[in-house]
Amino acid sequence: MTAKNVTPVTVVGLGSMGTALAETFIKAGHPITVWNRTAAKAAPLIAMGARHTEAVEDAVAASPLVITCLTTFEDSRVALRPAGAALRGRALVTLNSGSPAGARETAAWAIGHGARFLAGAVKNVPSAVGAPDTLLYYSGDKTVFDEYETTLKVLGGDTVHLGDEADLAALYEMAVGAMLLPALVGFFQGAAAVQARGLEVNTMVRFAGKWLDMIKSLLPIYAKEIDGGDYTDAASSVNLFLAGAAHDEDLAKETNVEAAWLAPLHDLVRRAAEAGHGDHSISALTEVLRKPARQP
Amino acid sequence: MTAKNVTPVTVVGLGSMGTALAETFIKAGHPITVWNRTAAKAAPLIAMGARHTEAVEDAVAASPLVITCLTTFEDSRVALRPAGAALRGRALVTLNSGSPAGARETAAWAIGHGARFLAGAVKNVPSAVGAPDTLLYYSGDKTVFDEYETTLKVLGGDTVHLGDEADLAALYEMAVGAMLLPALVGFFQGAAAVQARGLEVNTMVRFAGKWLDMIKSLLPIYAKEIDGGDYTDAASSVNLFLAGAAHDEDLAKETNVEAAWLAPLHDLVRRAAEAGHGDHSISALTEVLRKPARQP
Repeated sequence: MTAKNVTPVTVVGLGSMGTALAETFIKAGHPITVWNRTAAKAAPLIAMGARHTEAVEDAVAASPLVITCLTTFEDSRVALRPAGAALRGRALVTLNSGSPAGARETAAWAIGHGARFLAGAVKNVPSAVGAPDTLLYYSGDKTVFDEYETTLKVLGGDTVHLGDEADLAALYEMAVGAMLLPALVGFFQGAAAVQARGLEVNTMVRFAGKWLDMIKSLLPIYAKEIDGGDYTDAASSVNLFLAGAAHDEDLAKETNVEAAWLAPLHDLVRRAAEAGHGDHSISALTEVLRKPARQP
Repeated sequence: MTAKNVTPVTVVGLGSMGTALAETFIKAGHPITVWNRTAAKAAPLIAMGARHTEAVEDAVAASPLVITCLTTFEDSRVALRPAGAALRGRALVTLNSGSPAGARETAAWAIGHGARFLAGAVKNVPSAVGAPDTLLYYSGDKTVFDEYETTLKVLGGDTVHLGDEADLAALYEMAVGAMLLPALVGFFQGAAAVQARGLEVNTMVRFAGKWLDMIKSLLPIYAKEIDGGDYTDAASSVNLFLAGAAHDEDLAKETNVEAAWLAPLHDLVRRAAEAGHGDHSISALTEVLRKPARQP
């Protein structure tokens, strides 16, 4: 490269993540224009050197690369609606949650307005934006990714293009993200149990962290079992989890912690056993999940 | 130390974990006696130099340190019942799942038979037994831990005594373990969604691993919030998860993956928002879990 990459970027949506994105670009020397429905949220960024426009169409018109960071795809389309004409010839990148269907709709909408479209996701918390190891993945128009890869990498060093289909990033976002809420509720359940004993939750953090490392080490094994459809070489069997289910309920009772959310998980384990997977790897639950839900 | 520690050890219960424990002791040079209800399971260990006895009381009588590795505390007591008299003066260590109540019962039973009692848990998979970083924690009679610490560390370098109360290890085992099934079901859900798109599950393993690292980085923050009872400095709010709940259901529908197990998790998030925690950290779910379950 012969010159510092200083692509002007517009950031639409200044929640905690959008603000982190804009700040990171400003620190990297990019001319930044921001827009937010509640303009007051732009004040700290303006103090750092960002430009703020009252009208979203002016913000869009200010940069060849427009990044939206709103909660959903629909929020992005609603925010950009007045800027339809200004989108022509620009690259629109969404960094929000949402379903693959939402990504497809937004791609069609953006392309219909003459924009090139890339849908992405930041796989980390706002404070991690800009770190060399922070993962962001994108899918959609590869020409946008190739043209702006250096700029996008300002947001995180681990930046990946998953494929040309605009909804792939949303698919992976949701598939990978599916662990978050259940894992956290498990942690909070454990936290409440430890507290019920008069102990501090911080006493279990080191153990829980190692436990997550252990779970991480199992993922390639489970992926191989699921991809191959062969669950017979079971390090941890469905029956082992079935035996553990009773204890989960015992502990919840003993510590006065709600366990109702565990019942459908235990039911999945039970159904896997009933379907003949008792001695198979716990990853055989995938087979049970893949079926349409039984009618009650 | 002046001599190699070669405490004779008896291992009762030769499932995959019990077998791993016995193998690891044999490789470390300990005289090992094993017992299993199905004696055939002892064959590979006998080939490695272990002694196997037909009667469990002979196995118990063979070593000062007796380790049981059965599925539950009740299984341990049932297996050891004929060996009650042989337990006198020995150290009994359980390495199984089970509730704190089960640990207390087993402690009382063992002490009633004149044994010293330590309850522990291997926080890893059988293949990790013996590794320097593998975590095992114990609680109960500290004299057993102190006397046999070197021997117990053969099973994993990260070996911890949590306290004198025999049920503490079971409490932590279940509190920490509470993340496992929900996190795995989340992964399997994502795997099924990725497969429904005709993609291999192994394509999401790297992303899911980084996602677990991200979750791990949040645990000390959440523990601090829960210990302090202050949820106001929210990096990820209850409302943010509430907005995400709808997408989970969209994705499940689009990929024909069962989502029924998610409904009670979303219900917890909704109830936290209703209880005034909408703008608070997602760790405020702990407050909702701590309440007794509502009657349907």
